[in-house]
Amino acid sequence: MVNEDIMKSLAIRTESKIILLVADGIGDIPSKNNKTVLETALIPNLDKLASQAVCGLTDPISCGITPGSGPAHLSLFGYDPLKYQIGRGVLEALGVGMELTPFDLACRGNFATLSEEGIITDRRAGRIATTLNEKICKIMQDKIKRIGEVEVIITPGKEHRFVVVFRGKHLEEGLSDADPQVVGREIKYAQPLQPGAKKTAEIINEFIRKATEVLKEHYPANTVLLRGFAKHPGLPTMNELFKLTPAAIATYPMYNGLAKLVGMEILKTGESIKEEFETLKENFEKYDFFYLHIKKTDSYGEDGKFEEKVKIIEEVDKFIPEVLNLKPDVLVVTGDHSTPAILKGHSWHPNPFILFSPYVRVDEVDKFSEKACAQGGLGRFLAVDVLPLMMANALKLKKFGA
Amino acid sequence: MVNEDIMKSLAIRTESKIILLVADGIGDIPSKNNKTVLETALIPNLDKLASQAVCGLTDPISCGITPGSGPAHLSLFGYDPLKYQIGRGVLEALGVGMELTPFDLACRGNFATLSEEGIITDRRAGRIATTLNEKICKIMQDKIKRIGEVEVIITPGKEHRFVVVFRGKHLEEGLSDADPQVVGREIKYAQPLQPGAKKTAEIINEFIRKATEVLKEHYPANTVLLRGFAKHPGLPTMNELFKLTPAAIATYPMYNGLAKLVGMEILKTGESIKEEFETLKENFEKYDFFYLHIKKTDSYGEDGKFEEKVKIIEEVDKFIPEVLNLKPDVLVVTGDHSTPAILKGHSWHPNPFILFSPYVRVDEVDKFSEKACAQGGLGRFLAVDVLPLMMANALKLKKFGA
Repeated sequence: MVNEDIMKSLAIRTESKIILLVADGIGDIPSKNNKTVLETALIPNLDKLASQAVCGLTDPISCGITPGSGPAHLSLFGYDPLKYQIGRGVLEALGVGMELTPFDLACRGNFATLSEEGIITDRRAGRIATTLNEKICKIMQDKIKRIGEVEVIITPGKEHRFVVVFRGKHLEEGLSDADPQVVGREIKYAQPLQPGAKKTAEIINEFIRKATEVLKEHYPANTVLLRGFAKHPGLPTMNELFKLTPAAIATYPMYNGLAKLVGMEILKTGESIKEEFETLKENFEKYDFFYLHIKKTDSYGEDGKFEEKVKIIEEVDKFIPEVLNLKPDVLVVTGDHSTPAILKGHSWHPNPFILFSPYVRVDEVDKFSEKACAQGGLGRFLAVDVLPLMMANALKLKKFGA
Repeated sequence: MVNEDIMKSLAIRTESKIILLVADGIGDIPSKNNKTVLETALIPNLDKLASQAVCGLTDPISCGITPGSGPAHLSLFGYDPLKYQIGRGVLEALGVGMELTPFDLACRGNFATLSEEGIITDRRAGRIATTLNEKICKIMQDKIKRIGEVEVIITPGKEHRFVVVFRGKHLEEGLSDADPQVVGREIKYAQPLQPGAKKTAEIINEFIRKATEVLKEHYPANTVLLRGFAKHPGLPTMNELFKLTPAAIATYPMYNGLAKLVGMEILKTGESIKEEFETLKENFEKYDFFYLHIKKTDSYGEDGKFEEKVKIIEEVDKFIPEVLNLKPDVLVVTGDHSTPAILKGHSWHPNPFILFSPYVRVDEVDKFSEKACAQGGLGRFLAVDVLPLMMANALKLKKFGA
């Protein structure tokens, strides 16, 4: 990808519309019957789309590198994932729908159980109910509004999880997790990993002490573990960089959070794939770039559930004709990274990729699969180049140089 | 591509000979009968060459980026097009055949029409005849030889276009165009966009005032608009970087100009493709690198003339046996960028590429086309790597490291 200044100077605003359909973790390696999920699934519409498009394989970050969801998505949104590294705490904060400012340091929290002897006996406080979590978070928030000059904002997540945002001047990244990682240990406090983070560590550790004091009566949720301290990465928006008016359709907060980081508008949608495509149709006139995220291909990959992953992509397949009826100028179908069922986790394998637009050199690929896309006309390329490629095909980029 | 210092350290001078045959804008997207120009053309010699060579696709600049002729050619000549950006004024000066020195600041000019009220009423002075342009340029040149210490060199172009080169010490880039861009406004003067360009702006604006004075009696060509102020980019020569003794054969001044920028010797040739190949044969003993440029594949692409573009590449095809008779050590046939007839302009699509040499891994490609080359043994790569690849195949590069 060319640098951001060049992209900025080439991007133009036009009426054309781009849809980026991301089936999270769709890439697979052959396992069941020596086939991948895509080779097993009955996906006539995606196969037909591939046959009318140009295909290829994309590397999320770099050959051999397995990405987390953050960098894999940033890449697809056109941001260099090696330049912009997003800490876990920020991802979690976005995941519970918090708005972050440049003064924020975010972390993920667990409620945990502390024995009378001061030993952590359960790092998840027995996975307390989400409703109880919400109640206890409110109690903590009422009692702890600030630590010195620093504002504290607590937001409940699911079960035992919550997010703390510390908002104030001079907060610094570079802290060890305040989490012993195993049971049978005492409370672990955050340590500065660089000299500038010393004061920040003190604030965080003061919060842990106060929270444990406040939670005394709330066994089994009577202490907190904090991890992934991270500041807002301060990304330029897709509007600034690419002159796009982008919208996100995703069912999981983290993906909406990632989309928000790059300045996308988050569209309200339901829990089902059907509802996501409905949301796309309802809002199609209002934006020029749509990111539609399918979560469950990844979730089932992570769980090693091959057949369930097959069913999800088969369900997605049914909506492709409706998407094409919208007459987008550019439609991309791909993954953010691979999640092979047999590995039960993200992997480094490149993503199968379809680019559908009037200006592509249609290739011989007539199947949406890893093997077929490897023979595609686009060859193998970096995911960070997907956005420039989509913009080029939507005629949203001027010529570079004379 | 490795950096210039490494290339310099690896390059060796040998007797071997390289021919780089560039069919400008040859790449296409399927349109007529769902085929590209190359898929339509009868090019048995190029197809045979592809079958005896290794093929691939090259990106001129970066995936999705549509290049101008300048950066696209620099890339093919082995220069990082993002590092060396050539301003429009310089390209224009080269285009009208001017020689540039490191002391030159060049710009493109339009004759324009100024009303009695001092308002620009036509930015092209009614597209005056080229002969009239030449006459008026001579009058301007006779009256304006210098502005202070700075020499002024004026060269007519076609219709209302001309080029001004300001030659002197301490001239700086970073100036706004002296062109209101729309009619109905007053004369617009150049503004410095950086502090160092203030004096240069004064010189240019003094020229505009003097020119308008000189042109008073030459309605409708009674003022000038100047754009694209740019300095000579000061490129190292191909001899310095690659130890090559290169020669250029091109019919259009701009391509000779680009070749001159990188230190190629410009060979005198005729207007026809046949004459260009004659020139190659006549000079084959004298140089070790030949850049032979075919312009009309691009021109017809720009005009949307599919059939005419087909005929040009068919004409080029007839000369391939003569080129092979010269027994070059390396022959590359490719484009600098794509110019799909259906887009009537440059595009971002990668270039079909043939590399013929005794040391290639001949692949299964037996047709010179975009789709066939996408299946080639070289895969898809950056055009800036073409020069190292040619040199390697000509055994002109030493081993890197021990």
